[in-house]
Amino acid sequence: MTPSAQRQWVVAERPVGRPLKDSDFQLADAPVIAPRDGEVLVQTQVLSFDPAQKSWMENAANYRAPVQIGGVMPGSGGGVVVASAHPDFAAGERVVGDLGWREYPTIAGGHLQRVPSGIAVEAALSVLWGTGRTAYLALMKVGKPVAGDTLVISGAAGATGSLVGQIGKLAGCRVIGIAGGPEKCAWLTDELGFDAAIDYRSEKVRARLRELCPGGVDIFFDNVGGEILNDVLARLAVGSRVVICGGISRYNFDPRSPEMPEGPRNYFNVVFTGATIQGFLMPHYERDFPEADSRLVGWLREGRIKARPDVLQGFESAPVALRRLFEGKNRGKQLLQLDH
Amino acid sequence: MTPSAQRQWVVAERPVGRPLKDSDFQLADAPVIAPRDGEVLVQTQVLSFDPAQKSWMENAANYRAPVQIGGVMPGSGGGVVVASAHPDFAAGERVVGDLGWREYPTIAGGHLQRVPSGIAVEAALSVLWGTGRTAYLALMKVGKPVAGDTLVISGAAGATGSLVGQIGKLAGCRVIGIAGGPEKCAWLTDELGFDAAIDYRSEKVRARLRELCPGGVDIFFDNVGGEILNDVLARLAVGSRVVICGGISRYNFDPRSPEMPEGPRNYFNVVFTGATIQGFLMPHYERDFPEADSRLVGWLREGRIKARPDVLQGFESAPVALRRLFEGKNRGKQLLQLDH
Repeated sequence: MTPSAQRQWVVAERPVGRPLKDSDFQLADAPVIAPRDGEVLVQTQVLSFDPAQKSWMENAANYRAPVQIGGVMPGSGGGVVVASAHPDFAAGERVVGDLGWREYPTIAGGHLQRVPSGIAVEAALSVLWGTGRTAYLALMKVGKPVAGDTLVISGAAGATGSLVGQIGKLAGCRVIGIAGGPEKCAWLTDELGFDAAIDYRSEKVRARLRELCPGGVDIFFDNVGGEILNDVLARLAVGSRVVICGGISRYNFDPRSPEMPEGPRNYFNVVFTGATIQGFLMPHYERDFPEADSRLVGWLREGRIKARPDVLQGFESAPVALRRLFEGKNRGKQLLQLDH
Repeated sequence: MTPSAQRQWVVAERPVGRPLKDSDFQLADAPVIAPRDGEVLVQTQVLSFDPAQKSWMENAANYRAPVQIGGVMPGSGGGVVVASAHPDFAAGERVVGDLGWREYPTIAGGHLQRVPSGIAVEAALSVLWGTGRTAYLALMKVGKPVAGDTLVISGAAGATGSLVGQIGKLAGCRVIGIAGGPEKCAWLTDELGFDAAIDYRSEKVRARLRELCPGGVDIFFDNVGGEILNDVLARLAVGSRVVICGGISRYNFDPRSPEMPEGPRNYFNVVFTGATIQGFLMPHYERDFPEADSRLVGWLREGRIKARPDVLQGFESAPVALRRLFEGKNRGKQLLQLDH
């Protein structure tokens, strides 16, 4: 039975140059809207969280159209089709897309994608689409791994980092993750097959890199920025590639704030190594999406990569779930299951 | 007549983490040594100066073998063969090489190169070998210019920058130089054919770049680092290339000194643009030297690039000439003519 009303989270304030807080979001009631021509009504089962969502709220010029104050908070999710007025979708089918933080979104069918058979919605949101394409394409097209390369990943226990490490192992790399805390580090080596992990909270990153990478770092996959980026730049191998994929250490600060972490002084080591520092933004690689999707679906079905999301419960916890990303709390992809 | 004694400059102190000073060098007398098997005796006519010479004195691990305290100061120069015990060289021929700061070096012939006919020794030292190969290869192989690109150069009135701009024009780029002072800026546009120049001492670099590069910067050729690098990173075009060739703002500081200029906070813009930051070190491009040499000699002979060195007089001024590089005083390649 489809109810006539639903809950949704709307954006109340823009978190510009500061961390997220409770009052940035407001829970509101809204009617459930029957799908019209080309639309699909979905029951949201899982929401998926990404650091970029904060920049959307900030109305930053990057990535996507600005979010309105009072508008529904955007965000990826997955669920089941309840009613469809789009020829490609039928009731009961499992879909993902930018559902927004709503229990029963009504969405243009063209913005939805079907979950491949044999794959759980949670696994799809962890390993396919946004996170998966980012991990696969940033590593393969920018990092360009060669078997035997030493691959170092910061934010290694995050959604992207934990997947990059697994793909790096499949590409024949020696994989070293940098993460915060002994639990995350043990998870990387014991559960995900990383060769080693560095706990940046209790260990000296530069000294550990010297021990673990005597021949230097061939690929650095950076999700963090700040002091960790600077430390790894000091250990680059000749001809190495630095992939700038994220900068979680920066997202709570205004670019002009004195608290914004410094730029990496060791950038100049690219001269002595001929190294390359390159940024990755997914929309630039659209033509490679089919390659990424088919490799990832194949590896997931064969059990060669594991989906290990970090799952919270309850629609009312959506703001908490998003905040966990900036507090370093999530281990793997942050998801939220709704209890309908 | 070859004299039996000569003057030479030796290294007295290592200028680690500080500017050069007079007492870092000592003028000394030495015998002139007759060439033995395979050696050539040269009368030095011109010395040539490069910022890397300071790092050699510091005994930094980069570029080349360390310099001994009390040893002759190394450095490129050109002159005339006075006596030869090497089959490839005859008295009267014009040669260049790492002559060191000596009036009459005796050198293994294998370390010398002949100056191409029709080219002055001063022009050869300005536009060929070290400076020329750096400018040509860093621009062409790392910057990868495409006709119509907007090329911005820092340290544009320096030896490398002033040549990069001329090569950029030949490659069809719109060329904008950043330099210190109105004289240097006028020299770039009026004498060397740059399309525009920004005086970083009196103008706001970021605002001027916004005016001059409405479509963003396609190639940034950086010889400076510091705040200028940070400003240009804010204006990168999608798919742009940043060539890190030098960092003159950094060379007077120890890497760990608090006075060392900050790293570029705007490095993160590579994410939104997919831009590449890559370092250039000449030894990595050895196989491309013949290409660089033949293009540069051709252009110089055809008058398509101009050698406009900054020439001091007198062997006793060698330390002053080197210091000018770090004081932003030279306009074009810094040379010193000896008055024999």
